[in-house]
Amino acid sequence: MEKFNSSITYDRHLWEVDVQGSKAYSRGLEKAGLLTKVEMDQILHGLDKVAEEWAQGTFKLNPNDEDIHTANERRLKELIGETAGKLHTGRSRNDQVVTDLRLWMRQNCSTLSALLWELIRTMVDRAEAERDILFPGYTHLQRAQPIRWSHWILSHAVALTRDSERLLEVQKRINILPLGSGAIAGNPLGVDRELLQAELNFGAISINSMDATSERDFVAEFLFWASLCMTHLSRMAEDLILYGTKEFSFVQLSDAYSTGSSLMPQKKNPDSLELIRSKAGRVFGRCAGLLMTLKGLPSTYNKDLQEDKEAVFEVSDTMSAVLQVATGVISTLQIHPENMARALSPDMLATDLAYYLVRKGMPFRQAHEASGKAVFLAETKGVTLNQLSLQELQTISHLFSGDVSRVWDYGHSVEQYAALGGTARSSVDWQIGQVRALLRAQQA
Amino acid sequence: MEKFNSSITYDRHLWEVDVQGSKAYSRGLEKAGLLTKVEMDQILHGLDKVAEEWAQGTFKLNPNDEDIHTANERRLKELIGETAGKLHTGRSRNDQVVTDLRLWMRQNCSTLSALLWELIRTMVDRAEAERDILFPGYTHLQRAQPIRWSHWILSHAVALTRDSERLLEVQKRINILPLGSGAIAGNPLGVDRELLQAELNFGAISINSMDATSERDFVAEFLFWASLCMTHLSRMAEDLILYGTKEFSFVQLSDAYSTGSSLMPQKKNPDSLELIRSKAGRVFGRCAGLLMTLKGLPSTYNKDLQEDKEAVFEVSDTMSAVLQVATGVISTLQIHPENMARALSPDMLATDLAYYLVRKGMPFRQAHEASGKAVFLAETKGVTLNQLSLQELQTISHLFSGDVSRVWDYGHSVEQYAALGGTARSSVDWQIGQVRALLRAQQA
Amino acid sequence: MEKFNSSITYDRHLWEVDVQGSKAYSRGLEKAGLLTKVEMDQILHGLDKVAEEWAQGTFKLNPNDEDIHTANERRLKELIGETAGKLHTGRSRNDQVVTDLRLWMRQNCSTLSALLWELIRTMVDRAEAERDILFPGYTHLQRAQPIRWSHWILSHAVALTRDSERLLEVQKRINILPLGSGAIAGNPLGVDRELLQAELNFGAISINSMDATSERDFVAEFLFWASLCMTHLSRMAEDLILYGTKEFSFVQLSDAYSTGSSLMPQKKNPDSLELIRSKAGRVFGRCAGLLMTLKGLPSTYNKDLQEDKEAVFEVSDTMSAVLQVATGVISTLQIHPENMARALSPDMLATDLAYYLVRKGMPFRQAHEASGKAVFLAETKGVTLNQLSLQELQTISHLFSGDVSRVWDYGHSVEQYAALGGTARSSVDWQIGQVRALLRAQQA
Amino acid sequence: MEKFNSSITYDRHLWEVDVQGSKAYSRGLEKAGLLTKVEMDQILHGLDKVAEEWAQGTFKLNPNDEDIHTANERRLKELIGETAGKLHTGRSRNDQVVTDLRLWMRQNCSTLSALLWELIRTMVDRAEAERDILFPGYTHLQRAQPIRWSHWILSHAVALTRDSERLLEVQKRINILPLGSGAIAGNPLGVDRELLQAELNFGAISINSMDATSERDFVAEFLFWASLCMTHLSRMAEDLILYGTKEFSFVQLSDAYSTGSSLMPQKKNPDSLELIRSKAGRVFGRCAGLLMTLKGLPSTYNKDLQEDKEAVFEVSDTMSAVLQVATGVISTLQIHPENMARALSPDMLATDLAYYLVRKGMPFRQAHEASGKAVFLAETKGVTLNQLSLQELQTISHLFSGDVSRVWDYGHSVEQYAALGGTARSSVDWQIGQVRALLRAQQA
Repeated sequence: MEKFNSSITYDRHLWEVDVQGSKAYSRGLEKAGLLTKVEMDQILHGLDKVAEEWAQGTFKLNPNDEDIHTANERRLKELIGETAGKLHTGRSRNDQVVTDLRLWMRQNCSTLSALLWELIRTMVDRAEAERDILFPGYTHLQRAQPIRWSHWILSHAVALTRDSERLLEVQKRINILPLGSGAIAGNPLGVDRELLQAELNFGAISINSMDATSERDFVAEFLFWASLCMTHLSRMAEDLILYGTKEFSFVQLSDAYSTGSSLMPQKKNPDSLELIRSKAGRVFGRCAGLLMTLKGLPSTYNKDLQEDKEAVFEVSDTMSAVLQVATGVISTLQIHPENMARALSPDMLATDLAYYLVRKGMPFRQAHEASGKAVFLAETKGVTLNQLSLQELQTISHLFSGDVSRVWDYGHSVEQYAALGGTARSSVDWQIGQVRALLRAQQA
Repeated sequence: MEKFNSSITYDRHLWEVDVQGSKAYSRGLEKAGLLTKVEMDQILHGLDKVAEEWAQGTFKLNPNDEDIHTANERRLKELIGETAGKLHTGRSRNDQVVTDLRLWMRQNCSTLSALLWELIRTMVDRAEAERDILFPGYTHLQRAQPIRWSHWILSHAVALTRDSERLLEVQKRINILPLGSGAIAGNPLGVDRELLQAELNFGAISINSMDATSERDFVAEFLFWASLCMTHLSRMAEDLILYGTKEFSFVQLSDAYSTGSSLMPQKKNPDSLELIRSKAGRVFGRCAGLLMTLKGLPSTYNKDLQEDKEAVFEVSDTMSAVLQVATGVISTLQIHPENMARALSPDMLATDLAYYLVRKGMPFRQAHEASGKAVFLAETKGVTLNQLSLQELQTISHLFSGDVSRVWDYGHSVEQYAALGGTARSSVDWQIGQVRALLRAQQA
Repeated sequence: MEKFNSSITYDRHLWEVDVQGSKAYSRGLEKAGLLTKVEMDQILHGLDKVAEEWAQGTFKLNPNDEDIHTANERRLKELIGETAGKLHTGRSRNDQVVTDLRLWMRQNCSTLSALLWELIRTMVDRAEAERDILFPGYTHLQRAQPIRWSHWILSHAVALTRDSERLLEVQKRINILPLGSGAIAGNPLGVDRELLQAELNFGAISINSMDATSERDFVAEFLFWASLCMTHLSRMAEDLILYGTKEFSFVQLSDAYSTGSSLMPQKKNPDSLELIRSKAGRVFGRCAGLLMTLKGLPSTYNKDLQEDKEAVFEVSDTMSAVLQVATGVISTLQIHPENMARALSPDMLATDLAYYLVRKGMPFRQAHEASGKAVFLAETKGVTLNQLSLQELQTISHLFSGDVSRVWDYGHSVEQYAALGGTARSSVDWQIGQVRALLRAQQA
Repeated sequence: MEKFNSSITYDRHLWEVDVQGSKAYSRGLEKAGLLTKVEMDQILHGLDKVAEEWAQGTFKLNPNDEDIHTANERRLKELIGETAGKLHTGRSRNDQVVTDLRLWMRQNCSTLSALLWELIRTMVDRAEAERDILFPGYTHLQRAQPIRWSHWILSHAVALTRDSERLLEVQKRINILPLGSGAIAGNPLGVDRELLQAELNFGAISINSMDATSERDFVAEFLFWASLCMTHLSRMAEDLILYGTKEFSFVQLSDAYSTGSSLMPQKKNPDSLELIRSKAGRVFGRCAGLLMTLKGLPSTYNKDLQEDKEAVFEVSDTMSAVLQVATGVISTLQIHPENMARALSPDMLATDLAYYLVRKGMPFRQAHEASGKAVFLAETKGVTLNQLSLQELQTISHLFSGDVSRVWDYGHSVEQYAALGGTARSSVDWQIGQVRALLRAQQA
């Protein structure tokens, strides 16, 4: 049962923030007259010593240390004696642990944000460099229209900018001070929570002590943030796995991000991408688990909430690894522009053929139908769409004339899509500019 | 298969926004020179007629109408002839459907936001009115400390204010124009997307056409928003179900929100609260379902995305019902202050007894231990904590003196918790002020 | 609130089993002496009339009919008068509703089982007919080894046989009689539950009345059964979507299971398969939702359990549609054996090259390395593996001799895999036999 | 990336079964003529030495050991030289790892089954010993009818017997041999899979090599089994937490399963039960995660499947801890029969009052109404139901006579529920007998 109840195996991650929180709280106690200046200094120095031991790996856990809070206070008492017993005055593990977790996550979100932007930057750099490469755009995995390779890269990069935006919002809600809420009723000793806020650099103060000690919205939000981000990365991974098949042959992973087979000597497997794809499940599982734990829980603190930390630590580690591996994959990815070009086929210009007729005045629905007939005619004759003769096209519509030949140019095709967000060069440049602007805003 | 593929049974909800989107798009086509002014007017009037038929319930679906977009355009053609065939020029169902869904959800979020604030306001009004009622605060469902009843109400109201904050953020990301993205590559006909944005009153324009037609972040976010909000409501429901048991007898549901038993004549069951609690599962299930559908999906539009709409419609309906029922429950709830008062017991002041010693200079850890000894002594003697004599207390610590009797006053106890967020009257008033300020900000 | 509480919009599906359950219960009451034979006959005839009205679509719901049980009993009373009021003696909606649901699901599982086996049979028939077609087997989506096309079909069919096995187990646990459990304490009027069991043809009787009225294991199990089955189908759909891309070109969906594009005339999209893939999310979402609803629920009946029925009905409908569409897809799928053959490449025989050396006595690890060197040499020289000369191979190992040429035969390669479960013809035949035997056992 | 890819930190749990599998495989190779008897003995002895090192904690991992399979084979080679390189002939990590996992889980399920039955036995023993204690049965958490305390215990024990039944079914599907499936195509070297089956004591042989190496149904089933079992335990925990509140005061946890508060000296918190309740979320999260990972995965082995093992190990550990803690909680739980008795109230006999009228010939619906009137009358008069005089009752129905007084006896009430599954003593004894019979069957 002790082992079941104990959290020290994982909440030791919180050693640094626990010391940080306790230092701020001891200043609060001193201001409230519950510690003398001398006692406060004793505690502050003691806590610094505790932190030093953790940092140097010399902190020794006792079998009785059920959590990091108990461990640190136990050690503090060994170091400075009975004064240590004053530190917890008016505080509860309920407000202490959630303060620690918020401090830890605040820092961690900054780290993840930096890793996320490193990935986005890597993608935008490639998008900029490779913007003249065309390849097939797919919908329903069927060849749809010619697009720029950069347009594809940017489609994923843009999704990640939303993850960045959301992470900032989550971080804003993480950055709220619960300390001074006690176990449930608040703090009865006149501790100045605005001082605590300032000491710990929180953006706001929690409004209600019962809520503050037992709400884990910020954890649920973080786990969902990670889940949605992983969904994006799973889709990018899926694309790249497909593009890296022999059949597509558009891209090739660098050796560092592939692995061989224990049986088949010729294999090079995209393990890195498969792991990214799979982690979407694991991360979401943690989110689902926490929400189920929270469902129907009586209000205020219940031990059920102890489930929050392992979820946070595991998901943070996973996100950190995934973002770095994704950055590595993208930055070292080899592409095969000639295969991409070869995969473009005239039937992908059927829509352009319809637009040709539209520009000559035919309503789109009729033009769509006419182009469909041309596709069918070409299939029937066993030729590609651009091999139909003008006469043949004119059996479908008399609006076809010699200038139809201009349709059969992939470069010309993509340049039509010049509206904002499209695949024309100008529009791709605009997209790059938009993402770079977000990056600059983020760095500021 | 046709039935399997068809979405008209549920996407008919979108009839109004579909017309709205098409009207804007026809203006875009006119500006781009693809429609004459006359043609545009024909289409606009035709679309108004279509909308009128829907509004009056006279729109007749054909068996071939596989979705709302097809149905509306089919009807438009019947009404105005071949010109209708020009409406879809450069547009795809891929950008059309996601535009419709965003328009619908934008409106729906406003409705839900209003319902949410109606609930919060109801709660804050009660909190203000009943602020002098004390009752036991529980942690781990064990009696912890005396608190104000209003403090409990506010703990749930404050949680809901975070839901409101998050809903605004989701709404901001819903409010982005995808129209003009075509099927994948963008719009090739010079349609001015800024005009479309202005016509449809969107806050921003999607950056990348591939992403715009296939990202459903805003749906996933909405479903998660609802899931987290329901988690809050499930916890409040759980509390109220407990408080309404014979054993607690703190509250009683009005008859309108209770139901009887088909077998047991004496029963009054809190069905309303149980349904609220249970819907947390249903709503989260939709969120889980969508994320699983999105996981590993190749990029751009795939038919898998059709799963988004039923989830949105069901969850929107559920949230609307739940918020209204919750408001009804809270506004008609009868409370039993005398039972609440009776449930306060002197052992809930054990922490205050420790603070008494702290104020006399004893380190908290020792004071906690001393108070624990007093609790044990009282249990052993079969008396309540406040029935211990001064002499008995002094066997535990010589710091106890006659003024210890002041500890045994629940009203005095709660007033100690005057730090921000605590249960003192001043702090509860501050909380009410904080929530009311958010309400005013929301209304502005 | 009434609308929120009401379940009649969906539990009307239960009309037939509700009548069935009530008929059995009235026989139980008669045996217990609580109904006379005449009264029982009145009730039985009345219930038959109720059923007839439902069957003919003439049953009229009242606004007060909150659920199917109330509606049916109300109508019975209209038809036969006060005697109807004796039907519910000793029964509760708690045991009534779960009896109805079990009856409904028992029947539904038989239907789903038949649809599942129709799909499996269709697959096995194809596997048998197309057993001489070879194509690339992929792991990690990289070409691995040549296999029979039938081996691929069977890999999915075999997975579905496990779903069939599991469905039978779920059905066994569905097929347990809860009637006679009352609201919580059991039946106090001597109703013979063994008679009820016999009347309703249940396999067993629930052991504990509190558990019987509030456990929904059989629902959770059914939803999970469906989730796992959908996971299988989602993987098969994914494979077929890939095999149907232009790049793979192994298969082509029939027109009945494809759809066109509103924009791109040349497109044929595998909507049927995408919908199958996507429904895995929806179905699992229902499973997740129910489990979350059940988590931490106080024991015995709570209204939360009302969430079970919509989940069951939706998932049942989805499974029925998906299984039929999958059967249609498979039975009408066109395959391109020539493209399959063309996709086989000599590097897929690298493992066989290693086995060649193993058969000559080289330890596999060395043989694997040697074959890897050959692959590298071929790549370096820009030739295929089988184009390396004997001399070149001998620079890698002197064990290579003239008979190495036999390695380069795909047909010969697959025939090696003759162990049970492998891709040799004999083994594929054995697999077909195994699945056919399960089919026969199922039909018996 | 290496760290991301590596699984050795957790798959080292598999050391023993990996050796076991390799030993069996080397016998298979010998029979197939790929190893001489001498080579086989060398390998067998080497593997025993490897196992010995693991058992004694002397096995040293190399930085290059990416997984347990690589590590063991690397060490084997160090111990016995090049012959070790023959062990992997015709085997792939794909069939090796899934064989290992199945062996591990088979053993683990037996352990969990024993722990589960230890819990059930503990519950049934209490149920038998405390069968004469009555207390309120609740539905919707409202007092419903008097029941035996044992009836409550058995309601949870019976749920757990279903978990046992399901675990056996899962174990049956775990117990299937995949070894001999190679990477995808099967085994090409004539290895006798029936010999492997016999060596490793598997119940059956996998039918299709592609399926065998990539299906993880047995993992998903195990995770769902655990999720449903945890749902049961979460409901029992919820009941006990409620029954342990001051307000209910039916039960008291032993000190070993409670914990104190860092702030409030009087608190004894049911942490053990709260952790049990919360773990339902965690365990289900793992199930949800795996299903999401599997959704839409291309068939055969993909690295995504590596996610299976951590889920299995974590859930196995959790289940083991939870089952043991639950057993400890139940076996040491103190109950307060006097509080239970005191909580019974005459209104809980309102149904019996209706039955009284039914026995006198009144249709139940009228009797229910009449009893409802009596409840209302008593409430109006401010008396308990049994304090209504006969005259007062007769104003409601002339069927009431002097013998109505027999209704007001809780002991008499419960004895009415003598149908199978009810709360009468005979029926509770029958229930105990049913569960004990299952226990005996399990042990046999």
